[in-house]
Amino acid sequence: MTQPKYTTYPAADLKEFTANVFMHLKLNFEDAWQAADVLSRADLRGIDTHGVARLKTYVDMFSIGRINPKPNIKIMRERKSVATVDGDSGLGLVVGPKANKIAMDKAAEFGSGWVSVCNTNHYGVASYYPLQALERDMIGWSMTNSSKIVVPLWGAERMLGTNPISIAFPGFKNPPIVIDLATSVVAFGKIEQAKRQGKKVPEGWMIDGLGNATTDPEDVYAGGLLPLGSTREQGGHKGYALSAMVDILTCVLSGANWGPFAPPFALFEDTPKESVGKGIGHFFGAMEIDGFEDVEVFKKRIDQWIEVFRKTKPAPGNEAVLIPGDPEREAEQVRSIEGIPVIQAVVDDLMDISKKTGISF
Amino acid sequence: MTQPKYTTYPAADLKEFTANVFMHLKLNFEDAWQAADVLSRADLRGIDTHGVARLKTYVDMFSIGRINPKPNIKIMRERKSVATVDGDSGLGLVVGPKANKIAMDKAAEFGSGWVSVCNTNHYGVASYYPLQALERDMIGWSMTNSSKIVVPLWGAERMLGTNPISIAFPGFKNPPIVIDLATSVVAFGKIEQAKRQGKKVPEGWMIDGLGNATTDPEDVYAGGLLPLGSTREQGGHKGYALSAMVDILTCVLSGANWGPFAPPFALFEDTPKESVGKGIGHFFGAMEIDGFEDVEVFKKRIDQWIEVFRKTKPAPGNEAVLIPGDPEREAEQVRSIEGIPVIQAVVDDLMDISKKTGISF
Repeated sequence: MTQPKYTTYPAADLKEFTANVFMHLKLNFEDAWQAADVLSRADLRGIDTHGVARLKTYVDMFSIGRINPKPNIKIMRERKSVATVDGDSGLGLVVGPKANKIAMDKAAEFGSGWVSVCNTNHYGVASYYPLQALERDMIGWSMTNSSKIVVPLWGAERMLGTNPISIAFPGFKNPPIVIDLATSVVAFGKIEQAKRQGKKVPEGWMIDGLGNATTDPEDVYAGGLLPLGSTREQGGHKGYALSAMVDILTCVLSGANWGPFAPPFALFEDTPKESVGKGIGHFFGAMEIDGFEDVEVFKKRIDQWIEVFRKTKPAPGNEAVLIPGDPEREAEQVRSIEGIPVIQAVVDDLMDISKKTGISF
Repeated sequence: MTQPKYTTYPAADLKEFTANVFMHLKLNFEDAWQAADVLSRADLRGIDTHGVARLKTYVDMFSIGRINPKPNIKIMRERKSVATVDGDSGLGLVVGPKANKIAMDKAAEFGSGWVSVCNTNHYGVASYYPLQALERDMIGWSMTNSSKIVVPLWGAERMLGTNPISIAFPGFKNPPIVIDLATSVVAFGKIEQAKRQGKKVPEGWMIDGLGNATTDPEDVYAGGLLPLGSTREQGGHKGYALSAMVDILTCVLSGANWGPFAPPFALFEDTPKESVGKGIGHFFGAMEIDGFEDVEVFKKRIDQWIEVFRKTKPAPGNEAVLIPGDPEREAEQVRSIEGIPVIQAVVDDLMDISKKTGISF
């Protein structure tokens, strides 16, 4: 196996290219730069799967008319701190930030804000949204569903997406605690990586098409990923329940396509024959810290929490206990200076987009 | 090994005894019956560890003056939909329902209500509170911290409680979806059970005092439970992050004792030398469904969700995919008619309480 080739680009260059591509796809200036910011932040934070690597898929989705470049994003129903938003088939990278802003504005007025969103598409990395809330001294929440890849415990077929949950808490002198986790045991990308490397995957990650445990990455195409916890004995019913919670808050509440009905985000995936709602769904929350506690007092308590947990006696073979968000923050520090390493396959995609759109890369 | 002996009592009798014991401990009539209702509901729902089996521990806590029988439960700070409540060292079974009611009342006024609680004690079974919200056509949330037993991933010492998350969604013709999960891989009771039976526990449940994986239940006393996901490879960082989320929302936000500083709930556990706040912490949420969607429309969508997920093709060896809350609801149906089977050790405890208090059992 040869080592994959990477080329490093300044984050600002990738972001400008992305914004220009979105403008070419008829997004207005503000929306295009907003969408580019979501992808760029993922690249900066080392979440390569959710950055420019996804640009081609977004372009594909426009090409088949799945995404409305000029959506009329509307509150369909609301009562003070809560609302349902219709994304009008807009790009999730545009609908998400707007709906999240509605949640934050509600929090500024009512102490908290909660928005369930239907008729939207892939919104990028889940932690982008709580990070926005931190800037307003709020605790931010975000969740989204996605197309089916996860098998509920006891089941033999895909019924749920990887359905992530993100929440963030600000520190005072310390950087924030940023939680962002898929409710599946691992990301699909980990299976693909093992396949490329010709390796087996660990037990507990997946089942085959018959519902049996397997370690052969090839089996995932007929089978699926297991929920966090994997088996009944190891708490797989808990991962399934968390995924169900995300599915209901994002889709059943808003009127989006829940569970196995979520439309896919890639051209090669099958589209479910039946639809039970509009697009996919998101759920955003914001809570004003000042409504609960003096902001500085809370932030200093978070500092102390971080410092105490960092001092946990480490298990053999580990240097220290990490704080959620550590790896992404460290990546952001490095990449904002040194640039974003982009794998050759993605560079090829971007070159191809450049050729087709005439936007220089 | 001999089979443990059980005696079956009508739920109403156990509840009345419990209420009388709490009145004997100087709770007023209303609080005593409220507390008894929380314990009784756990027994009815088959969650034996959180019902009358705990009564002795509550009595112990009163005996050492840890619980204030006549607490002045107060809102310390609030802003429309959010509040911080001080439980004044009251019984968690009294403080919990009152704080949950504040959250629900806020939801009725502002669309949602969120209450973080300090200076409280063990509040019983987490799902009791969302079940109350369902009666008001709300989506209910509850979380609590508890004394340290869980090791954060990468660590070799206990830093977190089993920190459960509960949330419930109402159906129309179908019973509700009731999620209630500890963020540890298993409950401590499972380790004790294996020990009594002279069995090893499965890999991934616990570590010993040095932080190494172990399957010997004896090791748990020096070691601890692993978070949901167990290892890094299987997503243990996710269980740790969820537990951290609960710890922060329940304690750091309210000013309770977070992480390793949570005071214990049993006499035989060591009390942490340092205190960073007041008592333990809870977090309650309620969202008015009608603020997001017509209540009947939402409930009918939940019905459809349940029906679709029940029809999931089952994995070999399984009859069907369960819906969160199924086992507890089935227990409640049986036990509300046939009574609560109480294990002899708990019967002995209740007899002992009866003798000491003069309350007939």
